[in-house]
Amino acid sequence: MPKHIDVTELILRDAHQSLMATRMSMEDMIPACADLDQAGYWSVECWGGATFDSCIRFLNEDPWERLRTFRKLMPNTRLQMLLRGQNLLGYRHYEDHVVERFVQKAAENGMDVFRVFDALNDIRNLRCAVAAVKQSGKHAQGTICYTTSPLHTTAQFVAMAQRLQDLGCDSICIKDMAALLKPHAAYEIVKGIKETCGRDVRVQVHTHSTTGVTLVSLMKAIEAGADCVDTAISSLSLGPGHNPTESLVEMLDGTGFTTSLDKQRLLNLKHYFNKVRPRYVEFLSNITGVETEIFNSQIPGGMISNMETQLKQQGAGDRMQEVLEEVPRVRKAAGYPPLVTPSSQIVGTQAVFNVLMGRYKVLSAEFADLMLGYYGATIGARDPELVEQAAKQAKKQPIDIRPADLLKPEWQELRTAAIEQEGCDGTDEDVLTYAMFPQVASKFFATRNQGPKNLGKDPQMKAAVAPAQLAGAANGAAREPVTYDVRVNGNSHRVTVSPV
Amino acid sequence: MPKHIDVTELILRDAHQSLMATRMSMEDMIPACADLDQAGYWSVECWGGATFDSCIRFLNEDPWERLRTFRKLMPNTRLQMLLRGQNLLGYRHYEDHVVERFVQKAAENGMDVFRVFDALNDIRNLRCAVAAVKQSGKHAQGTICYTTSPLHTTAQFVAMAQRLQDLGCDSICIKDMAALLKPHAAYEIVKGIKETCGRDVRVQVHTHSTTGVTLVSLMKAIEAGADCVDTAISSLSLGPGHNPTESLVEMLDGTGFTTSLDKQRLLNLKHYFNKVRPRYVEFLSNITGVETEIFNSQIPGGMISNMETQLKQQGAGDRMQEVLEEVPRVRKAAGYPPLVTPSSQIVGTQAVFNVLMGRYKVLSAEFADLMLGYYGATIGARDPELVEQAAKQAKKQPIDIRPADLLKPEWQELRTAAIEQEGCDGTDEDVLTYAMFPQVASKFFATRNQGPKNLGKDPQMKAAVAPAQLAGAANGAAREPVTYDVRVNGNSHRVTVSPV
Repeated sequence: MPKHIDVTELILRDAHQSLMATRMSMEDMIPACADLDQAGYWSVECWGGATFDSCIRFLNEDPWERLRTFRKLMPNTRLQMLLRGQNLLGYRHYEDHVVERFVQKAAENGMDVFRVFDALNDIRNLRCAVAAVKQSGKHAQGTICYTTSPLHTTAQFVAMAQRLQDLGCDSICIKDMAALLKPHAAYEIVKGIKETCGRDVRVQVHTHSTTGVTLVSLMKAIEAGADCVDTAISSLSLGPGHNPTESLVEMLDGTGFTTSLDKQRLLNLKHYFNKVRPRYVEFLSNITGVETEIFNSQIPGGMISNMETQLKQQGAGDRMQEVLEEVPRVRKAAGYPPLVTPSSQIVGTQAVFNVLMGRYKVLSAEFADLMLGYYGATIGARDPELVEQAAKQAKKQPIDIRPADLLKPEWQELRTAAIEQEGCDGTDEDVLTYAMFPQVASKFFATRNQGPKNLGKDPQMKAAVAPAQLAGAANGAAREPVTYDVRVNGNSHRVTVSPV
Repeated sequence: MPKHIDVTELILRDAHQSLMATRMSMEDMIPACADLDQAGYWSVECWGGATFDSCIRFLNEDPWERLRTFRKLMPNTRLQMLLRGQNLLGYRHYEDHVVERFVQKAAENGMDVFRVFDALNDIRNLRCAVAAVKQSGKHAQGTICYTTSPLHTTAQFVAMAQRLQDLGCDSICIKDMAALLKPHAAYEIVKGIKETCGRDVRVQVHTHSTTGVTLVSLMKAIEAGADCVDTAISSLSLGPGHNPTESLVEMLDGTGFTTSLDKQRLLNLKHYFNKVRPRYVEFLSNITGVETEIFNSQIPGGMISNMETQLKQQGAGDRMQEVLEEVPRVRKAAGYPPLVTPSSQIVGTQAVFNVLMGRYKVLSAEFADLMLGYYGATIGARDPELVEQAAKQAKKQPIDIRPADLLKPEWQELRTAAIEQEGCDGTDEDVLTYAMFPQVASKFFATRNQGPKNLGKDPQMKAAVAPAQLAGAANGAAREPVTYDVRVNGNSHRVTVSPV
């Protein structure tokens, strides 16, 4: 009997976050839920910081309502979310009671599996969230953010897995957000975890496909004993997204491993999302194909485009190469943090500052906090001169305690502020939404009763480019006549353009 | 010391054949030759049937001159070509002397490695070409066309390798033209060949990436002992093309295998072809992403688009599903040939005939020949009733001898016909060009002195869509204003369209 390999489907969260700027509306997800629920996945990832943010910022959707709908439409499959440890879904540390309340409410609304990570791999930032998940009787997945540096060794990742196990995590996730996990490293780390933490510890591997090698890494991780892997339906896969679910299934044929996924359901899903994708053409990632230069810079694709924007705004669009070379230096000075939200933005912005204004002439407030320990501990020592400079600039002392230990209880204060907002319904869910994104939540509460906005259906965009033509454009070729609304001197014309 | 894995770079032949309809001009290849020559490839594939055809049909380029130029610009690297056995680069069987003359001339003009295949895997169709390559002192690579069917087993492929070795081949290629080669099968076949034919037999693996699993297959083939694999620079890779060279290099990191390729050269090549690709936007493949349905139908992507065209011409564009289901039946009736030029076209066209006119109401002339053995032997028995029907229709008897044994010496006749053409220079090279593609060659000889045509530079196309804008289109988004030449009522207007 081949060994069963579990699969987590990413299409409802990380796939569209990585490939279409997290813009997919609930309306476009609902028709896929029956197939997703019946295909045989171990879990369907469907919630996280960016999807929550996008719901209230762009889609006028209540993310809690989205979660309850998923629960109703997928009764047979675990729902999974990504949680930024003590940051929850936001960008700051929250006091423990808020963390506990958030987890409890997410569990009550239907969440089954909580993948908890910290951008610095500081395990103290995971402790409270993991305990809250256990308290709710749900699955707590402790996460190792994978990165490479002179200090990141197999032994170090295995030791972190051991500490996650000691925290009481139900499983360990190796999270490779920048597609840096090569096959041999995947094999060694999974093998090391299984040998050290026991064959029974459940190991899941999350990779992106940017560098083109990570389906091989999943194969090697499975050979080393991984129990579950993350993939996305092919029509929303590859590039900065993930390996295709269908390819994973076929890859294992004859190998002694099997997913038992229902191929017909996968095919239905593929065809369905093939139709959805072109509706969001204006949000589609610019990156296609593979990018192996990331192995040198360790800079994820999304971070590069952020830095490009910053440089252009300063009229220095030609200095990208200097910034790319500066990033590894800044990362070293900061003690080699993994580059993932928010550390990727903090390191990237400081590298831009260094190139534009001279090295460390100015520290961003966030970089100063990072240097002073206010995001937690890093694996490497931080540059002592820069720590001193940060302390002076920020007028704060460096800390080595858990950052959230500095926080006072804040639930009542958050609650009071939330219910003052027009349209806030006074539930804990609304308070939590407000706690995560105060300004955006305030605007969302006021407009919530206007109902969801499907950006894939925006009438202006639909008039400009019809789906069939978008599909052609996405393939890089205009083989058919294309009709545009063209404005010349303020007058609108319907014009058809054919290949010459 | 890690084991050295050789690499054949496909960018100058199969990559642009698979992704941009074989249209890349020599002018766009020349600037890449220095990097290709210095990167450390075992060989650079640069010649084959489609590139030869495209040279004289579309590009007004002498393919022999192209070969000589490659030889001059890449003095340190083996040049490699794909040869259709007794068909050479054409679509019919040639008499042995023509085969010998072609191989001799290709060798004289600079070819080093001849990958010789037969669409039916009939080894008798390889014999003459392989002997001619050996006679020229060059590298003869015997090829197994990989396919799947109830009759295609590991043992059967290994036995074919043994027979290729007995023919005197310098190496064995497993040619997976439809991306059907899964990791486990790759491992088993390579291992079987190494065990049966000896560890010293050189095994090379060629895969396409259509199904998304074949980089894993290359990994497993390498683990099983493969000596050399085929890849293409990332900017012309994936989809119906090939696995990216850079990903192969990175994949092997730490595994006990290494390519020793020069990463800086690969990066130069990536950036260079990134600039070339958008110039050919109108020829770019429609297929992006992965297609795992091919595992069921065994139908390569190019064949599907051919059949779609045939159906549409008959006003039956809605009957594709029936045809897709008919192909495996026709393939079975024909004795399970691999589907590759020309068997893919023959089987596909007959499936279309069956759907449109009733099953085997009409046989195409080529299908009748296939059933009667005029292309060679197939692995399975052919349907006896259809063989009888084919014999009646074609007024020919079935044969079981090598098809070329029926042919009379034809070199003098071909030579006489060729030199009668306006512009033929009387060389053996011109005679061979005429022998391959008589009508196209005749036209080419007459226009040759007008010099090469670079379709990536076609002024009409360039005016219509500028490169920077094409790059945007290829990524599926028009984020920048785009300028078009638009014809309305026969009048041409220059119009700029901006995102609304």
